[in-house]
Amino acid sequence: MNKVVSFGEIMLRLSTERHLRFEQAKAFTASYGGGEFNVAVSLANYGVNAEFVTRLPNNEIGTCALKEMRKMNVESKNVIYGGERLGIYFLETGAGTRGSNVVYDRAHSSMATIEKGAIDWEKVLEGATWFHWSGITPAISESAAEACLEAVKIAHKLGIPISCDLNYRSKLWQYGKTPSEVMPELLKYSNVILGDIDTAYFMLGIAKVNPNYQDEKTLPALYTKLFELCPNLKTVATTLRYSVSASHQRIGGILFDGKTIYNAAVKEVTPVVDRVGSGDAFMGGLIYGLLEYPNNDQRALDFAVAACCLKHTIAGDYNLVTLKEVENMLDGDSAGLVSR
Amino acid sequence: MNKVVSFGEIMLRLSTERHLRFEQAKAFTASYGGGEFNVAVSLANYGVNAEFVTRLPNNEIGTCALKEMRKMNVESKNVIYGGERLGIYFLETGAGTRGSNVVYDRAHSSMATIEKGAIDWEKVLEGATWFHWSGITPAISESAAEACLEAVKIAHKLGIPISCDLNYRSKLWQYGKTPSEVMPELLKYSNVILGDIDTAYFMLGIAKVNPNYQDEKTLPALYTKLFELCPNLKTVATTLRYSVSASHQRIGGILFDGKTIYNAAVKEVTPVVDRVGSGDAFMGGLIYGLLEYPNNDQRALDFAVAACCLKHTIAGDYNLVTLKEVENMLDGDSAGLVSR
Amino acid sequence: MNKVVSFGEIMLRLSTERHLRFEQAKAFTASYGGGEFNVAVSLANYGVNAEFVTRLPNNEIGTCALKEMRKMNVESKNVIYGGERLGIYFLETGAGTRGSNVVYDRAHSSMATIEKGAIDWEKVLEGATWFHWSGITPAISESAAEACLEAVKIAHKLGIPISCDLNYRSKLWQYGKTPSEVMPELLKYSNVILGDIDTAYFMLGIAKVNPNYQDEKTLPALYTKLFELCPNLKTVATTLRYSVSASHQRIGGILFDGKTIYNAAVKEVTPVVDRVGSGDAFMGGLIYGLLEYPNNDQRALDFAVAACCLKHTIAGDYNLVTLKEVENMLDGDSAGLVSR
Amino acid sequence: MNKVVSFGEIMLRLSTERHLRFEQAKAFTASYGGGEFNVAVSLANYGVNAEFVTRLPNNEIGTCALKEMRKMNVESKNVIYGGERLGIYFLETGAGTRGSNVVYDRAHSSMATIEKGAIDWEKVLEGATWFHWSGITPAISESAAEACLEAVKIAHKLGIPISCDLNYRSKLWQYGKTPSEVMPELLKYSNVILGDIDTAYFMLGIAKVNPNYQDEKTLPALYTKLFELCPNLKTVATTLRYSVSASHQRIGGILFDGKTIYNAAVKEVTPVVDRVGSGDAFMGGLIYGLLEYPNNDQRALDFAVAACCLKHTIAGDYNLVTLKEVENMLDGDSAGLVSR
Amino acid sequence: MNKVVSFGEIMLRLSTERHLRFEQAKAFTASYGGGEFNVAVSLANYGVNAEFVTRLPNNEIGTCALKEMRKMNVESKNVIYGGERLGIYFLETGAGTRGSNVVYDRAHSSMATIEKGAIDWEKVLEGATWFHWSGITPAISESAAEACLEAVKIAHKLGIPISCDLNYRSKLWQYGKTPSEVMPELLKYSNVILGDIDTAYFMLGIAKVNPNYQDEKTLPALYTKLFELCPNLKTVATTLRYSVSASHQRIGGILFDGKTIYNAAVKEVTPVVDRVGSGDAFMGGLIYGLLEYPNNDQRALDFAVAACCLKHTIAGDYNLVTLKEVENMLDGDSAGLVSR
Amino acid sequence: MNKVVSFGEIMLRLSTERHLRFEQAKAFTASYGGGEFNVAVSLANYGVNAEFVTRLPNNEIGTCALKEMRKMNVESKNVIYGGERLGIYFLETGAGTRGSNVVYDRAHSSMATIEKGAIDWEKVLEGATWFHWSGITPAISESAAEACLEAVKIAHKLGIPISCDLNYRSKLWQYGKTPSEVMPELLKYSNVILGDIDTAYFMLGIAKVNPNYQDEKTLPALYTKLFELCPNLKTVATTLRYSVSASHQRIGGILFDGKTIYNAAVKEVTPVVDRVGSGDAFMGGLIYGLLEYPNNDQRALDFAVAACCLKHTIAGDYNLVTLKEVENMLDGDSAGLVSR
Repeated sequence: MNKVVSFGEIMLRLSTERHLRFEQAKAFTASYGGGEFNVAVSLANYGVNAEFVTRLPNNEIGTCALKEMRKMNVESKNVIYGGERLGIYFLETGAGTRGSNVVYDRAHSSMATIEKGAIDWEKVLEGATWFHWSGITPAISESAAEACLEAVKIAHKLGIPISCDLNYRSKLWQYGKTPSEVMPELLKYSNVILGDIDTAYFMLGIAKVNPNYQDEKTLPALYTKLFELCPNLKTVATTLRYSVSASHQRIGGILFDGKTIYNAAVKEVTPVVDRVGSGDAFMGGLIYGLLEYPNNDQRALDFAVAACCLKHTIAGDYNLVTLKEVENMLDGDSAGLVSR
Repeated sequence: MNKVVSFGEIMLRLSTERHLRFEQAKAFTASYGGGEFNVAVSLANYGVNAEFVTRLPNNEIGTCALKEMRKMNVESKNVIYGGERLGIYFLETGAGTRGSNVVYDRAHSSMATIEKGAIDWEKVLEGATWFHWSGITPAISESAAEACLEAVKIAHKLGIPISCDLNYRSKLWQYGKTPSEVMPELLKYSNVILGDIDTAYFMLGIAKVNPNYQDEKTLPALYTKLFELCPNLKTVATTLRYSVSASHQRIGGILFDGKTIYNAAVKEVTPVVDRVGSGDAFMGGLIYGLLEYPNNDQRALDFAVAACCLKHTIAGDYNLVTLKEVENMLDGDSAGLVSR
Repeated sequence: MNKVVSFGEIMLRLSTERHLRFEQAKAFTASYGGGEFNVAVSLANYGVNAEFVTRLPNNEIGTCALKEMRKMNVESKNVIYGGERLGIYFLETGAGTRGSNVVYDRAHSSMATIEKGAIDWEKVLEGATWFHWSGITPAISESAAEACLEAVKIAHKLGIPISCDLNYRSKLWQYGKTPSEVMPELLKYSNVILGDIDTAYFMLGIAKVNPNYQDEKTLPALYTKLFELCPNLKTVATTLRYSVSASHQRIGGILFDGKTIYNAAVKEVTPVVDRVGSGDAFMGGLIYGLLEYPNNDQRALDFAVAACCLKHTIAGDYNLVTLKEVENMLDGDSAGLVSR
Repeated sequence: MNKVVSFGEIMLRLSTERHLRFEQAKAFTASYGGGEFNVAVSLANYGVNAEFVTRLPNNEIGTCALKEMRKMNVESKNVIYGGERLGIYFLETGAGTRGSNVVYDRAHSSMATIEKGAIDWEKVLEGATWFHWSGITPAISESAAEACLEAVKIAHKLGIPISCDLNYRSKLWQYGKTPSEVMPELLKYSNVILGDIDTAYFMLGIAKVNPNYQDEKTLPALYTKLFELCPNLKTVATTLRYSVSASHQRIGGILFDGKTIYNAAVKEVTPVVDRVGSGDAFMGGLIYGLLEYPNNDQRALDFAVAACCLKHTIAGDYNLVTLKEVENMLDGDSAGLVSR
Repeated sequence: MNKVVSFGEIMLRLSTERHLRFEQAKAFTASYGGGEFNVAVSLANYGVNAEFVTRLPNNEIGTCALKEMRKMNVESKNVIYGGERLGIYFLETGAGTRGSNVVYDRAHSSMATIEKGAIDWEKVLEGATWFHWSGITPAISESAAEACLEAVKIAHKLGIPISCDLNYRSKLWQYGKTPSEVMPELLKYSNVILGDIDTAYFMLGIAKVNPNYQDEKTLPALYTKLFELCPNLKTVATTLRYSVSASHQRIGGILFDGKTIYNAAVKEVTPVVDRVGSGDAFMGGLIYGLLEYPNNDQRALDFAVAACCLKHTIAGDYNLVTLKEVENMLDGDSAGLVSR
Repeated sequence: MNKVVSFGEIMLRLSTERHLRFEQAKAFTASYGGGEFNVAVSLANYGVNAEFVTRLPNNEIGTCALKEMRKMNVESKNVIYGGERLGIYFLETGAGTRGSNVVYDRAHSSMATIEKGAIDWEKVLEGATWFHWSGITPAISESAAEACLEAVKIAHKLGIPISCDLNYRSKLWQYGKTPSEVMPELLKYSNVILGDIDTAYFMLGIAKVNPNYQDEKTLPALYTKLFELCPNLKTVATTLRYSVSASHQRIGGILFDGKTIYNAAVKEVTPVVDRVGSGDAFMGGLIYGLLEYPNNDQRALDFAVAACCLKHTIAGDYNLVTLKEVENMLDGDSAGLVSR
């Protein structure tokens, strides 16, 4: 069985309900998530052996995060403990023309203060068949970026396929370095990259292009560029997201394997229950597809898109859907009938 | 005044809120409902004298169901007591491409263990001007099927018009008989049948037809067949449901009185607050229409469609709308303006 | 800095959640609002010095309303105390084809029993650069109408620009006078009037026109009429609202300055989180626009329309959005992207 | 079977949860209750045929109250409709040293504006074996007092036993008359009076006595006085309440039948879930006891005390306990063991 | 490290909040628990390797129970799947003089229909150092009793210490056998028995003794009797529970090792947040104590009593406290100070 | 009128409801509080002109705190903005033998990173008649300690009376200095000190004394010591807290003015709704008492004790009671009667 190790931060997510603004909330719904953890949960739900490696504070809030990992059937045995606090993010869920708003409170978290050498990667990665990281870890602090580079290098050395979700967040990268100073070195070791064109160019230090990044002519140019810069790259993919409103998205996908461009049909997603984590659902689906449909990149991409669409109907950070539900959607069942 | 007696099961419904999956729910919203009870509530809300006959366990949960009947102004004096438990169904409300999911836990319920002879139907039906049952009761157990047949035969003997909602549920019919072994005998006594084409064929043991059952050519063939098989049939109708997604339905209706086909205009229903029970709302509207507009099948059908559409905006199993609200919609008011 | 004084009633609003009908609600969400107060909150949120003048009961429920004013940064120093009760309105939030329903319980409120002379308007209006009232105050009682007229006359005497939102409510005006007996005298002193055509004609005692009031030919006729009847009128505007359903509105606007007709592009608003107060959000936006973009009526109108659209995504009576959020929408950002 | 008719007001009760102060509440729990209605519910729960007569507004909030009556199995067929509003009371539940706080908002309610002649009492009381009223109805308005006197006189004429709970409320009696101007005439027709000594003296216009009203010497003097003033009096009783704190009460009772004084043992009641309505629970228990244990005043009194104690564990206005639960307590079972 | 295998049923628990009666509840709080599972959770919380063996239905509700096991760090790898439904119990939490009420709905559950031979106990018990069962499993059905006997025999054969909590439930034992026909055979293999005197006598078919079972003279007689009947018995213990009210308990304990009687000091427990599962907390504490303090039965007993006391402050079935918290209480810290 | 300026941190408080443990919580109740802010709210509630000075992050969570200040009528005009985050504390509310647990997450907060010179104290303190600080501010960071010293020195220079609540928190003081290195210099300028004996000795670097610190002989020795060390000291007081359990406290107080020892009678406080902030309620009451009853230290102390007792019945950090409610309790009214 495949074993996927994912490395990153799990946070306490504090969100308002029913589209309330922060100041209207008498309570915040508490859940736990984070880009790389969300990928691990997706994979566990599909039946893959999924492990998550992170650093947690040794307090009651850290324990809550740990229990969530267990509940979701994500292996937590290599989690390390230390630091002061669990990262937090506040989420105000938008609707219609008002977008959702994220207030990060993750600086100084246990994961942000992780250091190179804290994890024995040779041991952790024993038996792993995939390693996943994202652009968030190098964005939270310099030492986290170093810890990430260490992991990536060892995974590479061990011959484990590596995937990266670029995940650019404008409110992070506050520690004095720009993405283009940090990311290229990390991406050199990655075999699979997920990212939209703006994110990709920004990570590479190239000027931001204009909004219609879904242009058929633009993406291949980016992909070619990435293949030039990343010697180990095998697959690059992009979630195509057309945002009609906070409550109505159109989701497609595109994938390039160095030779062929694959496109997935665009699907209507409305209403949106929760779009945070839908990119992670795409990434989780993509890893699953690449592992399980090894000679069928079209199906891998379609699987990723279907998983991403379904995520928009799920509250919370990660995609709480079963393999069968994604497959049903792949097989054309999206009318939302009652099962009874 | 008309007096409609409805016979079937009332269940405890345990549903998640805000589209949560079962495993995310810290609490289940508790309400009470069931196909035939929902019809009774619709009629009570329209001012009809409505009675519901069922079997309840003699415990606190059964009492909760009884109090709900009273609150909804549904006569409960002929309810009988016995058996072990109130049937339960769990409901996870879908959204968009993810359909709702029902987990039945109604086996061994007080209603499932009802037996022929338990109810003195001659006395119960005194003064009744209509009797209603549905395909759910014969689906839950053999003894319930027998009890249902007994009721239908006596109602027929007493000359009371009988209606049936076919209500096929794939997760029921677990006791060893197929619908086609049980339903035809029951349908023989019915004057009004509500059902879609797949359900009808399945109940009759004919191969399932393909999905576009709304085809103008297919339905008349079904209707002709039903009229052949059911000697007392006077009216057959179908809710036309085009499911764009779990959150967006298009609802129409068709009715055949043995001579003429009546069609109701298709209406947009979006968003869907709760679609469970919308078929029962159609049925309740149809009975009301047939009783109150005796020479106007078009209006009876339109009333049923309008009631069905409005039900999609109501949380819970039954249709909590007034006669005036259905009539306003029939008169063209569907813009959803604020009344103030 | 501009200082806007608004005069009217603040009520306790008791609403059901998640589209529940009144009888389904085990609890009512409590908030505070009212047409003229909502305008004050909008302005405070945009950074304007906003004051609200009203009469509150000297009990704990009145204190709740007072604390809400403070929280929203609306000046409350000239609020007066007396009378028996805070006005209440019950709100059942509709969805789709079922409109929201308001049950007023505001008769005999402290504001309804206010009397002429209770407020020292000369002192209150010192330093004010704008005065706002609405058609609700004269609708709740005769003495409130007199108190309103007194305020309007003094504001006029002091040379303060006066705005009025006609705000016709069919469930009010129960005290024996019709709008057309009361409103013309009040409107004579107003410089800015917001109202749709039916409301306006009704207020003026002219027969109600047919529903497509948005007709380009009809509105100018109304506007001309209003300019004839209201000697101080400078600006008249109308919120154009096309109600597809309770959950889907299309919002535009039109403004006439006596010379030119300005139109704002119609925007899609779906889903609707809460449309109560969206007219007040338009009014608040219009006052802001007229004050801050003095020579740019088009931008003032566009600002009002954008504010109104955003309000539909906010739960509660008033528009809890920042100046920057409205400006972003004015600048074309309505895709509802996640900010992170 | 006994049939008890109770006459009074049913209100919407809006209470804060978990001891929140009014200003902290984002929602109010909505329930329905009122002294005389609470008595009717108690009796219905004990299996007595209970009817409640009141006047409701013809709006959705009035309908909610009506549905509550039905749910509780209280006959509502003689309820009349009219007036503007359902009375409301706000309740902030105290704890420990902080007492609960009631804010009445019941002026101008449908019941407060009821008039003599509105109810056909001869017809309503047909078959009744008991009539109950309380000191609240004459406290809310002059016309309600007149309507109450009419009812009492007719009940007396028809030879129906009449009970009254004095129920003095300092925040009522705002309409210009004092209790001692109104109550004596009403009490003349009553056969059973429940009241504490301060209340009784106040109702009779005698100076308030000092707090230790439970003094064995004081109460007999009051009782003798009441027997002198009320020619039809047969039984007078008092709930003995020793308030250690809002969360800890000691409850006993005393009853005088004109000859003998009966005492009930004082019971500890802690914690208090909700003490509002506990006096009504006493009254309901007393009526039940007098009806069902006709020659056993001691048991009638003990039943009333046990019912009162149990009420303190029930949220909401009325006493949601079964006959068996009160009897178990009478039989000594008050250890609060788990039943399983 | 010790490995404790516990065998029994895990149920969905549906409870009302804030002391509401069933009929008042609009929602039921959903959690998962059951006597033997609760013991497993206690042990996992103390750091013991704990496994739970049960039979779950292969549906979404069964999956919820499985995820709860994982979250609580209880090994679930030997859980088997089959049957129709997860057992349910409804819980109405009492207060003061009103006891809590449990309505069982566990007949026909997957665990109730388990059969002998379904579990490969030789494999499951490999490496186990303790086996725990309770009197509930043989009480739910004959086949469950047989499955339990099979497990106990194999554990005995493998030389694994066996504990049993007698756990008599008057609402179970509905399948035609009495405890005294079933339990003695099962108890023969047990080394540790927890039970109060009435339960024990009842299980053994001896007449129930009177309530003051805590009598110093009565318990030793019972213990001697048990030692006679159970050839493998080493330790017998009783939770001493003095129920002042549903909200106030006094908890002590007594233990007999065949030679010496050990007593634990009685502790005050007030208020009671949730007493369901407190006996399981005692059992979990006792197993922990016997395993970890092998030559210190006094401390083992004291640990069990402290754990039991703390459980009363925890909502839900199982005891969510850490080893350190129990030890702190053992060390005398019970003043409930704020830790900050 | 008196004007009291309080300086410290306001935090987001995230608490579990109904005694849930952190890991059981699906939501955290959000409120705002902090020792010095709580004092300001108490004073505002008593009608004193209260101002709070702090440093808030310039984000949406900081805005929430600001709006809370406004709602509570605490002047916020001198609040400064900057830094990264609002301090957070998590609160799990205990019951009975299980104490409440606070998890601080306030490191790196905007207030923790405040620096000397950031506030123009000469201007801020203009017109102030009292300045209040507490031992928390110097405990969170070195720069905060410096900023606090600056404030205290300027207040002293301006001749404004200064009060300090020692408020020792074992989980703070993490930045490398001990209280005894920092506090003596700060206390030198203070006129009023509130603290228990352990705290006081610890702050002064003297060995911790044993638990019965309420000993009449021990406290005078401490007080004498404090008067020696603090040249400006006029009044020293201690809250006497006897913790029976987390749900039951006994509260008294003692005050020394350099000449006389005053004692307040110990009061029973049970149940405890929320004891966090009860010390701040004492402090707020003491300041009020010293200001308003200048020659009556006994009444000042009694007022502080009554305020402290009432706070235990209030959810949230600060004491939401009116002057009248404290005075009623001072006058002996603590039976918790219903006001109606």
